[in-house]
Amino acid sequence: MNNRMIAYVIGRSLLAEALLLLVPLLAAALYGEALSPYLIPMALLLALGALMTVRKPKNTSFYARDGLAIAALVWIFMSAFGALPFVLSGDIPHYIDAFFETVSGFTTTGATILTAVEPLTRAGLLWRSFTHWVGGMGVLVFVMALLPMSDGHGMHMLRAEMPGPTASKLVSRMSDTAKILYVIYFVMTVILIVLLLLGGMPLFDTLIHAFGTAGTGGFSCRNISVGAYDNLYFEIVIGVFMLLFGINFNLYYFLLIRRFRDVFRSEEMWAYVGIVTASTLAIAVNISQMYGGFATGLRHAFFQVSTIITTTGYASTDFNTWPAFSKTILVLLMFIGGCAGSTAGGMKVARVVMWTKSSYHDMRKMIHPNAVTTVRFEGKPLGEKNVHGVYLYMTVYMLVFAVSCLLLSLDGMDLVTTFTSVTTCFNNVGPGLEVVGPMGNFSSYSAWAKALLSFDMLAGRLELFPMLLLFAPSIWKKRKVSAGRV
Amino acid sequence: MNNRMIAYVIGRSLLAEALLLLVPLLAAALYGEALSPYLIPMALLLALGALMTVRKPKNTSFYARDGLAIAALVWIFMSAFGALPFVLSGDIPHYIDAFFETVSGFTTTGATILTAVEPLTRAGLLWRSFTHWVGGMGVLVFVMALLPMSDGHGMHMLRAEMPGPTASKLVSRMSDTAKILYVIYFVMTVILIVLLLLGGMPLFDTLIHAFGTAGTGGFSCRNISVGAYDNLYFEIVIGVFMLLFGINFNLYYFLLIRRFRDVFRSEEMWAYVGIVTASTLAIAVNISQMYGGFATGLRHAFFQVSTIITTTGYASTDFNTWPAFSKTILVLLMFIGGCAGSTAGGMKVARVVMWTKSSYHDMRKMIHPNAVTTVRFEGKPLGEKNVHGVYLYMTVYMLVFAVSCLLLSLDGMDLVTTFTSVTTCFNNVGPGLEVVGPMGNFSSYSAWAKALLSFDMLAGRLELFPMLLLFAPSIWKKRKVSAGRV
Repeated sequence: MNNRMIAYVIGRSLLAEALLLLVPLLAAALYGEALSPYLIPMALLLALGALMTVRKPKNTSFYARDGLAIAALVWIFMSAFGALPFVLSGDIPHYIDAFFETVSGFTTTGATILTAVEPLTRAGLLWRSFTHWVGGMGVLVFVMALLPMSDGHGMHMLRAEMPGPTASKLVSRMSDTAKILYVIYFVMTVILIVLLLLGGMPLFDTLIHAFGTAGTGGFSCRNISVGAYDNLYFEIVIGVFMLLFGINFNLYYFLLIRRFRDVFRSEEMWAYVGIVTASTLAIAVNISQMYGGFATGLRHAFFQVSTIITTTGYASTDFNTWPAFSKTILVLLMFIGGCAGSTAGGMKVARVVMWTKSSYHDMRKMIHPNAVTTVRFEGKPLGEKNVHGVYLYMTVYMLVFAVSCLLLSLDGMDLVTTFTSVTTCFNNVGPGLEVVGPMGNFSSYSAWAKALLSFDMLAGRLELFPMLLLFAPSIWKKRKVSAGRV
Repeated sequence: MNNRMIAYVIGRSLLAEALLLLVPLLAAALYGEALSPYLIPMALLLALGALMTVRKPKNTSFYARDGLAIAALVWIFMSAFGALPFVLSGDIPHYIDAFFETVSGFTTTGATILTAVEPLTRAGLLWRSFTHWVGGMGVLVFVMALLPMSDGHGMHMLRAEMPGPTASKLVSRMSDTAKILYVIYFVMTVILIVLLLLGGMPLFDTLIHAFGTAGTGGFSCRNISVGAYDNLYFEIVIGVFMLLFGINFNLYYFLLIRRFRDVFRSEEMWAYVGIVTASTLAIAVNISQMYGGFATGLRHAFFQVSTIITTTGYASTDFNTWPAFSKTILVLLMFIGGCAGSTAGGMKVARVVMWTKSSYHDMRKMIHPNAVTTVRFEGKPLGEKNVHGVYLYMTVYMLVFAVSCLLLSLDGMDLVTTFTSVTTCFNNVGPGLEVVGPMGNFSSYSAWAKALLSFDMLAGRLELFPMLLLFAPSIWKKRKVSAGRV
């Protein structure tokens, strides 16, 4: 590991966070709220960031594994410092709660320990939702630019996930990729804000919900989330935009450069559209009696399917009261998640498609052992390594999931709460069922359980391996790095 | 497919089932119960069996895939006919219920649709439990002799699972392997019966519980299972024997031929012992307050851990009332299951060990991409194909599990009931939680749900693929088979 270089990158990210805090600082000034909760962390971040970046290391090269470690550490450090304003402003008095909330923000999960959000300071609310937007940007760059560069064994699957050309071919250098993604992300967010303003939503609320939608996070400024407006227009706009932010951002780039055919041919996108349509219709039929008609059923089904598959977590109604079939669909959608290369969490539609195709293929081989066939995904053959990689992902995912459920059950919550708490945090969704349902929250968990769920949010967000690698003792040993490798 | 040969083998199995029905027929005669419920199916089986075996096919060769299809079909046919006595005797009036119960018996699951078992006829009770014992024998031969012969892609993992020499090396011919296994199985059952008789259990009850323990099935002749005796000696004997029947039978063969070192070195066995010990202690501490002391807590913890990890399903107490932590451990144990090559169900300890080791190894490779290492299991290196196979198993397992949960949720049970119903049937355990808890049953499910759960029991019992292969259209097409292959 190139420890100096890692410290340097983390220092840079802390400096960036100091700048990001300008947003809530401005809000605090506008609303006449206390400025110190933002000024103090900013000062701290600037000092520490400056110290860590005072001298650029001579040896700037690092291996892919260093990149993964950096991603994990940046997310942890930014959450640790990003939690300070909540404590200082008194919005969230206990540090572990504030840490959980900030991890939930940066990982774009949207799970909350707050029993009510409306009493928060305006600046606090804005910072809370802004972490979603920043986290979404971070994820895009992490998944699209950093991961495909890494040549570790298990990372090939992520390269495989990219429909069409890989990120490295899309634009050759990481910073250029980042810039294009940021512009797309920014423009889509602005369009969403304008549409919400046109519908008559107050400016502050539009910002909150646009940040939450773009990052597929789900923090709201209203206790009962988007349901508080009881406005069909808002539900449709937010519902559609959640789905849009859950699509692979490569496809938007293809739209920009007029490669419509590549968009139209995306296997993952069609699977995503198919799952959303089928789930919405199935739930609508299942719940229409509850809501006195198919139309209202469809309205609620569409919004909840959109919010859950994109792992956003806004709610227009309390799906905790829905029948078992609808709830089971939603829980399965939490696992599936959005498309690879989007801000959405979960296992990703691409992986689900690849799992289904590869296992079907492997089972065919049992019947026809001598047949020479290959699995294709997005028109390209999936090599042995890619298949191995997606299978490995499922296995590690399930092992971490099982251990998390076991540890969390020590807190003594009922089984559905325990199981869906891990499901919703690990997949970066936000709400679960029962105690942590859309109208519930995570406040009743112990500090230890909140730390565990924070780990799960980070592990899920960073595609498992970066967080797990931090536990490998050998990653901390210094070793020679050959210059020139990035 | 060599359809003539398949029909011939199924015909033979139907003839065998006619002979097996002599056992309950004898019981009916002894207890003065109606004989016709057994005589009619026997006549039917003999006629059909004779018809199917009247001419031995000239071409007796078949491929491994034919073997897998045969395994699935034999289990289905034997269950379909084995259900008749229950309907004819009036013990279980509806055929779908009787079918569910018989599948549960032959797959050694132990899930029941009966709200009370004590009103059943003696002969009916004996036949019900005898299916466990027969199913256990069938599984041993299936896993130890048939599967290792198949050379399908995904089957290598099963070869890999066998500690020490593979079944084919153990004894060269399938029928010899079967004979040795049957002798071990028979002798262990007899020892268990004697031990239970020595403790003062009535003969009829010893037979019922010995059959249920040997097959790791779990049908009892008492409504509240083994708890009805409230006898520490019985609980220890049955608890220990359940664990013994959950160990790979290869190890008993090694004991017989005095290869103690191989037994002592079995990685799977030590993992199994470790999981049992850790789970028992953790649950004992967790529940000791409920039972007014560590000793009683330990007693119940040991029995329930033994019954669940071996997927037997007897109960000495209602673990439905236990705290979340203990229940979560039990649910995880349901997934783990016993050792490969035993009568136990579940994913098998060998697979869990291989998953953990392979994913740890693959993650290490991300950090050290150039390091040349291999995963070893039971002292032998696991090749790429084996690792691919175990990963594939996890993926297919999870996909089938998710689809089953979704379909079952249409029945409208609560989520814990739905989830644990699939868990307990798919892993061949027996009891789940809530409605299907150790003191509950599956009677309230619809006919369609019972058919689905019967499928899950069969799929879980036959290591997934045979049941799934039945759905492949191409397996039913006739093709040329080269003579001489087995």
